[in-house]
Amino acid sequence: MSSTIGENIKISVFGESHGKAIGVVIDGLPSGLTIDMDKVLREMKRRAPGNDKTATPRKEADFPEILSGVVDNTLTGAPLCAIIHNTNTKSKDYSNIKRCPRPGHSDYPAYVKYNGFNDIAGGGHFSGRITAPIVFAGAVCKQILLEKGVKVTAHIQSIGSVKDKSFDPCNISDETIDNLLNSSFPLLDSSKEEEMRKEVADSAFNKDSVGGTIECAVVGMKAGIGYPMFDGVEGRIAKAVFGIPAMKGIEFGKGFELAKMHGSESNDNFRYDENGNIYTTTNNCGGILGGITNGMPITFKVAVKPTPSIAQVQDTINLETRQNDTLEIKGRHDPCIVLRAVPVIEAITAVTILDLLS
Amino acid sequence: MSSTIGENIKISVFGESHGKAIGVVIDGLPSGLTIDMDKVLREMKRRAPGNDKTATPRKEADFPEILSGVVDNTLTGAPLCAIIHNTNTKSKDYSNIKRCPRPGHSDYPAYVKYNGFNDIAGGGHFSGRITAPIVFAGAVCKQILLEKGVKVTAHIQSIGSVKDKSFDPCNISDETIDNLLNSSFPLLDSSKEEEMRKEVADSAFNKDSVGGTIECAVVGMKAGIGYPMFDGVEGRIAKAVFGIPAMKGIEFGKGFELAKMHGSESNDNFRYDENGNIYTTTNNCGGILGGITNGMPITFKVAVKPTPSIAQVQDTINLETRQNDTLEIKGRHDPCIVLRAVPVIEAITAVTILDLLS
Amino acid sequence: MSSTIGENIKISVFGESHGKAIGVVIDGLPSGLTIDMDKVLREMKRRAPGNDKTATPRKEADFPEILSGVVDNTLTGAPLCAIIHNTNTKSKDYSNIKRCPRPGHSDYPAYVKYNGFNDIAGGGHFSGRITAPIVFAGAVCKQILLEKGVKVTAHIQSIGSVKDKSFDPCNISDETIDNLLNSSFPLLDSSKEEEMRKEVADSAFNKDSVGGTIECAVVGMKAGIGYPMFDGVEGRIAKAVFGIPAMKGIEFGKGFELAKMHGSESNDNFRYDENGNIYTTTNNCGGILGGITNGMPITFKVAVKPTPSIAQVQDTINLETRQNDTLEIKGRHDPCIVLRAVPVIEAITAVTILDLLS
Amino acid sequence: MSSTIGENIKISVFGESHGKAIGVVIDGLPSGLTIDMDKVLREMKRRAPGNDKTATPRKEADFPEILSGVVDNTLTGAPLCAIIHNTNTKSKDYSNIKRCPRPGHSDYPAYVKYNGFNDIAGGGHFSGRITAPIVFAGAVCKQILLEKGVKVTAHIQSIGSVKDKSFDPCNISDETIDNLLNSSFPLLDSSKEEEMRKEVADSAFNKDSVGGTIECAVVGMKAGIGYPMFDGVEGRIAKAVFGIPAMKGIEFGKGFELAKMHGSESNDNFRYDENGNIYTTTNNCGGILGGITNGMPITFKVAVKPTPSIAQVQDTINLETRQNDTLEIKGRHDPCIVLRAVPVIEAITAVTILDLLS
Repeated sequence: MSSTIGENIKISVFGESHGKAIGVVIDGLPSGLTIDMDKVLREMKRRAPGNDKTATPRKEADFPEILSGVVDNTLTGAPLCAIIHNTNTKSKDYSNIKRCPRPGHSDYPAYVKYNGFNDIAGGGHFSGRITAPIVFAGAVCKQILLEKGVKVTAHIQSIGSVKDKSFDPCNISDETIDNLLNSSFPLLDSSKEEEMRKEVADSAFNKDSVGGTIECAVVGMKAGIGYPMFDGVEGRIAKAVFGIPAMKGIEFGKGFELAKMHGSESNDNFRYDENGNIYTTTNNCGGILGGITNGMPITFKVAVKPTPSIAQVQDTINLETRQNDTLEIKGRHDPCIVLRAVPVIEAITAVTILDLLS
Repeated sequence: MSSTIGENIKISVFGESHGKAIGVVIDGLPSGLTIDMDKVLREMKRRAPGNDKTATPRKEADFPEILSGVVDNTLTGAPLCAIIHNTNTKSKDYSNIKRCPRPGHSDYPAYVKYNGFNDIAGGGHFSGRITAPIVFAGAVCKQILLEKGVKVTAHIQSIGSVKDKSFDPCNISDETIDNLLNSSFPLLDSSKEEEMRKEVADSAFNKDSVGGTIECAVVGMKAGIGYPMFDGVEGRIAKAVFGIPAMKGIEFGKGFELAKMHGSESNDNFRYDENGNIYTTTNNCGGILGGITNGMPITFKVAVKPTPSIAQVQDTINLETRQNDTLEIKGRHDPCIVLRAVPVIEAITAVTILDLLS
Repeated sequence: MSSTIGENIKISVFGESHGKAIGVVIDGLPSGLTIDMDKVLREMKRRAPGNDKTATPRKEADFPEILSGVVDNTLTGAPLCAIIHNTNTKSKDYSNIKRCPRPGHSDYPAYVKYNGFNDIAGGGHFSGRITAPIVFAGAVCKQILLEKGVKVTAHIQSIGSVKDKSFDPCNISDETIDNLLNSSFPLLDSSKEEEMRKEVADSAFNKDSVGGTIECAVVGMKAGIGYPMFDGVEGRIAKAVFGIPAMKGIEFGKGFELAKMHGSESNDNFRYDENGNIYTTTNNCGGILGGITNGMPITFKVAVKPTPSIAQVQDTINLETRQNDTLEIKGRHDPCIVLRAVPVIEAITAVTILDLLS
Repeated sequence: MSSTIGENIKISVFGESHGKAIGVVIDGLPSGLTIDMDKVLREMKRRAPGNDKTATPRKEADFPEILSGVVDNTLTGAPLCAIIHNTNTKSKDYSNIKRCPRPGHSDYPAYVKYNGFNDIAGGGHFSGRITAPIVFAGAVCKQILLEKGVKVTAHIQSIGSVKDKSFDPCNISDETIDNLLNSSFPLLDSSKEEEMRKEVADSAFNKDSVGGTIECAVVGMKAGIGYPMFDGVEGRIAKAVFGIPAMKGIEFGKGFELAKMHGSESNDNFRYDENGNIYTTTNNCGGILGGITNGMPITFKVAVKPTPSIAQVQDTINLETRQNDTLEIKGRHDPCIVLRAVPVIEAITAVTILDLLS
């Protein structure tokens, strides 16, 4: 089913951008953990609009109301449903988009699939807005993972042609993770912020948008987690990540660079450290061999396409006249969603990893 | 479950490299189609070892014996089980690999997960050999897809630093598909064959291996197939592809290049052709928007890591002595598996697409 | 996962009896159907408390608020979430139940499973109250089924030792279905109502409760729907029905009576009618052979245990003192839930059948 | 999917009665256990034909050949595939059955579902013969369960109108379990054997068949196993049991008798025993409350319909002439399958319980 994922921890996401509310049901959570709601709200705020100049100025509180599964802030073990009321929906006219599907958007395939009955207002169920409940789910899962010694972190790897450093895949410190979490613009090399912001500002000025990449890491995973073949860790993460709008690629460890390497370079050699613990001297495989963790950090990068909603006049079709036409998209759109996507990638990864460990 | 995938067409793969037999159960096939076994065997041969100098000289017939689900070469609708007997298994000594896990292999994580009880001979269930039944399954699914007007094709996109052209994603002709199918070294620009073969030969000479990339396309998909969010076409293909050993990255359409682009460049504009059919003038999205097909060819690229089994002495650990050690892998190994992986990627894609259409 | 069921139509139920709200997410609904909310509310009312003397006098409006998946009363194809606010929750003291698990209730196994963190107020997630969202889901699915010519109906088959007639399994008329739907006490032989009510009243008078059975039928199913073995129609319905609290048995067609019969009696002979349509002269198999429909009505009966919440003093344990103890349950409880369970059985059957047909 | 079941332990059953081989893939087994093949063969023999006068005299060795997942009789953790070659298939003419569907059989619904392409020889994939691999899977799972202190046992509860005693659901001793396992006619009250055999013999003499019931128990389950709602223990067992041909009803604990009882009779009171262990004084609920085990034995009964293959001339239709017709079934058929079904019910229960515990 489209909006459900997971085996032991299963999330079911619902809602449309301009409907009454969006939300998520999380089934399979363990009982007993007391949820720190401040931490949850902090994660929600990282994704919420209106917090950064690279993003849409549209303000939305994104305050989650928990309907079930929690008593006295403590998980009961029953399905947890949280909803976020849509408060900032303008009664805008979407008839032009209904007629003229936006290039790069799901409008046209959704029109075919749903015979035109899908809710198109604000993107409906395809809107990036419904990643908000995913961030909620991830924030809860992150707190459970922390009890297991596992942390999920991510940073902007690139925006347009400007690149951040990558993680040292053999050694991602708690300090690094904390810094990224507390940063309003999570980079390993913060000197790149200005240049990246300029890429976004230039795009916005040109009524255009720009893409980027995100690097994510999972730290604290023991060796031996996962499955061979179709239920491997890579496949599970990939399926979850491609559930997030605008993601068009994923690579684990060195990923596509491995394709240019020799085995003698790419193989990660095993060693014992002074305490008798096993590690690898490099981590080109991104912590996963044969679908199973090897005890090193899991690392992967995802490609985020440029926001398709741009203010330039674009060529498209008119489904009413059945003629070629043009479209000019109005409204407040993100010139770059990479920054806001960072906590979303962390969240869906946290859900996936907790599922694996449950 | 590790070795099972699919919703409506479900495959369950079993077997170890040096066990009695490997095989697959395919559940959910439609009844009534007469299977062309010659075509199936041709696909099997494309993957089988011993057919090309870039691959291991180990000969293995890979002849599938169908145990169920077929009467008079015709699908009955009941689960189809096919097995391939392992005929060329040498009673080799694998105790050194059991002690000293091979860098880049699943040996160590599997040792942890299975407490050392996994079959290590020839890689056991993690061996590339168990892609043979996947090619069988794909060959059957391809024939069913053909009835629906859908074709799956792939070519070597690169080996090491040598690159083939990419598909024209808006126009992949039947001729192109046939040429690739009938080629012993499937390239769009066959002039690159020599250079690629040299990359492989050099690696082999250096007791090394080399990686590469494969581009795959699905032609003939109507618009409106797939689902939003977690059951999108990208996620389904990605989960299936990461089930194949050695795959470390996947990107749809322009993939990671999209991350460097502006929306005005990456958006694929919709147009009507002279017959009133809808198409896009570019196909940067790889035929998928919002997880749903838009009627253009689906295209994606996968990263294949260099074969980890190389003949050079490598640093590793000794799980018996719990000391650092070295390992020299003996035996016949592929210096490059990209060529043999082409039909495997086609096969698992065919299974996934048929599942979507069933 | 515990509170999720379905393949193509998937429902995810959440909520606790005394939490903020209960609800359901329905994923996989087709787009385009306009929902008749009056019909939905009529189904909700059939289940709601306070409508009949056999049930608890506790009044609860059970008004569903649709949060997503519907625009202008029309299904969009996106996940539909509906919630029902809990309005009549008393801030009662449940500490005695927490200490002393109620005989016949899930209190003790839930205490073990959730380490005492499950919400015990009003039964929490185990409460019969969370069948309300199931009735909502069933009401929506029933309207879609009607478009496909399929109807689901049920009646009280017995309460205590008083029995209603059973369906004529070969011929269930629209009139019969309408009569049952519109009846406040759905019986085929309405002359049994008084006697049944007396059973319930006597039980209530004795601070006791009483069980019963329900017969359900699905009319309008074509032959050839379903699957052999583990995904047969019987198995799917059974799994769904046992998801409803208090159900302890299910039998299809003649069910347990078949165990006493000979093949010559139980076999349903096939015949052509005057219009060339195939039917069976009897329907002992309940419309299902080999897991697949044969075109006759699907019929099954379920056993409903007596409500475990009775006002008599009962022997139980005290989990605090770890001594034997007694418990006297206070509050307003149904002396018999069979009447209120009728629409619930219809609803979960409708969801299951629509899933099969989707 | 039709022939696949399980979450963590997943079995995929394949084969047709008269095909090359039947078999099963078991995915998710733990590594390390050494399988006692003698015990496996003993279970296979309990189900095999030709061992008892109540069953078909058709002899079939039912010897399983393990193709994967086992090295030196020890589970590797990889998918285990076992096949049983069909050795006693007669090249009989099944064209009359193809034309004239047998009453009470899946012939007609399968004909519709598979457009006549299903293998009808010997019942094809619908044959009781494909329960042989299920018994194999169950035999392996039983050995793993034994390590966890869990035993599965069953007996004939009734044949026709002759009844055996039921289990004392509060106390099922190892001796009872051993006796049943070693008996060629598993009864709690062995004095009933003669009478039951007479029921079968009379039916056979009359060219007829007879049904019965089986009672199954799972002993050694801790409290707190299972899930509320749709993934409860009852639902899981029921879905698995209805995957076995000829099963038409299931009831847990007192089942349908509960429907006639009052809460004061049916509620099982909790008590501490002298060692501080919790038990219930009765076990009317069959060890399951709210879908979760309460620590008492799980008990359930299933209804087995009479074998539909009887030698009497029966009324049916002719799908070629599209006229009413008659059919006389030839061949060797079981007049009663209850005895042979006992180990099958045990087996599928063992698979289901191990899945729950994995």
